[in-house]
Amino acid sequence: MASNRPEVLAEVRAVFARYEEALVGNDVAVLDELFLDSAETIRYGISENLYGIAAIRAFRNARPAQGLARTLEDTVITSYGDQMAIASTLFRRDEAPGKIGRQMQTWIRTATGWKVAAAHVSIIDAPA
Amino acid sequence: MASNRPEVLAEVRAVFARYEEALVGNDVAVLDELFLDSAETIRYGISENLYGIAAIRAFRNARPAQGLARTLEDTVITSYGDQMAIASTLFRRDEAPGKIGRQMQTWIRTATGWKVAAAHVSIIDAPA
Repeated sequence: MASNRPEVLAEVRAVFARYEEALVGNDVAVLDELFLDSAETIRYGISENLYGIAAIRAFRNARPAQGLARTLEDTVITSYGDQMAIASTLFRRDEAPGKIGRQMQTWIRTATGWKVAAAHVSIIDAPA
Repeated sequence: MASNRPEVLAEVRAVFARYEEALVGNDVAVLDELFLDSAETIRYGISENLYGIAAIRAFRNARPAQGLARTLEDTVITSYGDQMAIASTLFRRDEAPGKIGRQMQTWIRTATGWKVAAAHVSIIDAPA
């Protein structure tokens, strides 16, 4: 599969930016729209392991809306073919000095747009 | 994309099992073979963020060979189309009671077999 076709990358970059904006703004409707509506969708979060879109929705709806601001760094989006892409990024929050977050998402193209089929978010001590 | 075609799932399950065996046995050659040989391959590990196959190789070669045994649970492999699949699993180690690991890998089909294009491994307190 050809990686990083410019037109595919542009699409995924746009949807990734839309997701990030929804995340820091706690726009639950957009977050839900951008996750694959499937029992097979998985999200490993900072302190929870969510299997299936129903579990992911329940978590989103119960999530506190404060303290979501963050800055991204070392963001890499790579597409493989024209049907899937992986978005990886580190992030930091002002209220968590010395810590670094990692977010990895696998996006797939569907009839209703690009969707996250799996995501994993974790926080570690920032490497020296 | 059709998900979970049986013949695709069978292939990915086999290579996932081969990876797991290599991981607990610290078979660095097989681990290396099964990761995509690309500057775009990313591995977020338990305490390190590795960008590119060169960084991943350097980490593998320096890794201690002890304490790698683990048991998997809630393993889910889902294929999308016949070119990619996502493998998600939780894991526990006897020496880390109360903790649970999460491993998520995106596999892609290449001319030389299925390869991990991106992986994220993290450890959290086991949810109550």
